[in-house]
Amino acid sequence: MKILVEIICIGNELLIGKTLNTNSQWLAKQITNLGLVIHRITTVSDDINEISASIQEAINRKVSFILTTGGLGPTFDDKTLEGIGKSIKSKTDFNEKALKMVKEKYLTYFKGRGINNIDLSSCRKKMAKLPNGAIPLPNQTGTAPGVYVEYENVKIIALPGVPSEMKNIFNESIAPIMKKIRNKLAFFEKSIHTSNVMESAIAPAIEKIMKNNPSVYIKSHPKGTESVSNIEFHLSTTIHDPNIANQNLKNAIYQLKQKIKEKGGKILLENSKS
Amino acid sequence: MKILVEIICIGNELLIGKTLNTNSQWLAKQITNLGLVIHRITTVSDDINEISASIQEAINRKVSFILTTGGLGPTFDDKTLEGIGKSIKSKTDFNEKALKMVKEKYLTYFKGRGINNIDLSSCRKKMAKLPNGAIPLPNQTGTAPGVYVEYENVKIIALPGVPSEMKNIFNESIAPIMKKIRNKLAFFEKSIHTSNVMESAIAPAIEKIMKNNPSVYIKSHPKGTESVSNIEFHLSTTIHDPNIANQNLKNAIYQLKQKIKEKGGKILLENSKS
Repeated sequence: MKILVEIICIGNELLIGKTLNTNSQWLAKQITNLGLVIHRITTVSDDINEISASIQEAINRKVSFILTTGGLGPTFDDKTLEGIGKSIKSKTDFNEKALKMVKEKYLTYFKGRGINNIDLSSCRKKMAKLPNGAIPLPNQTGTAPGVYVEYENVKIIALPGVPSEMKNIFNESIAPIMKKIRNKLAFFEKSIHTSNVMESAIAPAIEKIMKNNPSVYIKSHPKGTESVSNIEFHLSTTIHDPNIANQNLKNAIYQLKQKIKEKGGKILLENSKS
Repeated sequence: MKILVEIICIGNELLIGKTLNTNSQWLAKQITNLGLVIHRITTVSDDINEISASIQEAINRKVSFILTTGGLGPTFDDKTLEGIGKSIKSKTDFNEKALKMVKEKYLTYFKGRGINNIDLSSCRKKMAKLPNGAIPLPNQTGTAPGVYVEYENVKIIALPGVPSEMKNIFNESIAPIMKKIRNKLAFFEKSIHTSNVMESAIAPAIEKIMKNNPSVYIKSHPKGTESVSNIEFHLSTTIHDPNIANQNLKNAIYQLKQKIKEKGGKILLENSKS
């Protein structure tokens, strides 16, 4: 059974094209490699209604996990926790554990500068205002805690937008949960790079080879134009047994290579990670 | 009046984290600079139901433009046109103009190789199967035409996933349409890079400065951690008059710089493009 995950990226900087969304690619790769399936990636603005609507929609699609990135910081437009709260019909309120985490970060920071009396302004305390029932997740490289909350069998996880903080919380707190429930499912992939053969010449064969090897997904990625025709063929499978996975991929690659050679194409490179 | 645009990126390679979604950033930047507003970016798989559902949802949000990327090629999993057709309750069928475009591409390609008798297989002809009322858009760097269709006052545009083809069709066929309807709206931005001041220390001021300068949006982008605290403050406005835009941004920057200095921060760099 596929375990479905959605990623919701929050931030105007993504919608105006200022920031390249590397966070969603990184998360998608980690989660796919763990054997779970990314069902959709959505980017919305720093607006409570947009945030809560996009989360509510993902809840309605009955996925197992929703991961958000961004909007956990101290500024007025960091609204993710309020948005999550709204989507799960919960108010946000100070969480003692989260407040302690935030306070300790500032204590350490100010102590380092010889200041003992810290100003925990409302902006700073906001990072500890969580929906009911939520659990703060330690952030080892930044200030704002991650947040974990369950609602209607969906695990909702809020991660910061700063990549180092997002990665730290995912690796420490979320990957272990996903590993536990994936039930040995894992993702396997191989690529072959070719030249001198058009995508459209191989297209009919791909469909046939996939029918012969039903667990394998084959996708062609043209790198030039049809007339230059460098193509990467990417083969992947999500399966329990690595031996079966490798055998399936091997069979499909053999059949694909035969077809490419038949059409006059050249195999440039073959590798197990693209 | 804001002109809303949604981008829908289609492709399993994006959901498994194999490909970084640079297409959506490029489109978002171009469209924002033209003065239109990106409302949401969605990534879905190569599945007709997923494609049509995501387009239908964007239609229901009553945006002015929906741009899709990917899924226009010759392989079995290129399903964008069928997905668009389903979302606007139209069958897809061969479009004479599109068929001519595709045929000419292959004629040129095969002639270059001394072959005069071309094989326009069903895979190749598929690229010319358009929803009713759709118009094919010339693709100067690749084979698959772009597609333009209107439905319930929404302009739906399908662009290829190959970046050079996507950019070519956007620049030649879509940017001119957007320029015509934007009604002189344009986007203006400035950035200041600072050190030695925490994001949380400036957070309360940002809200005040935005209230004083209601057309200006200010967003802080922490580059390190709170304790290292290199921050980029990004100020932007979408407005008709460049003189007013510059004056508004200038006022907001002046007030922000005063606050940063008051808190002991340093201004490292100030520029009008980030």
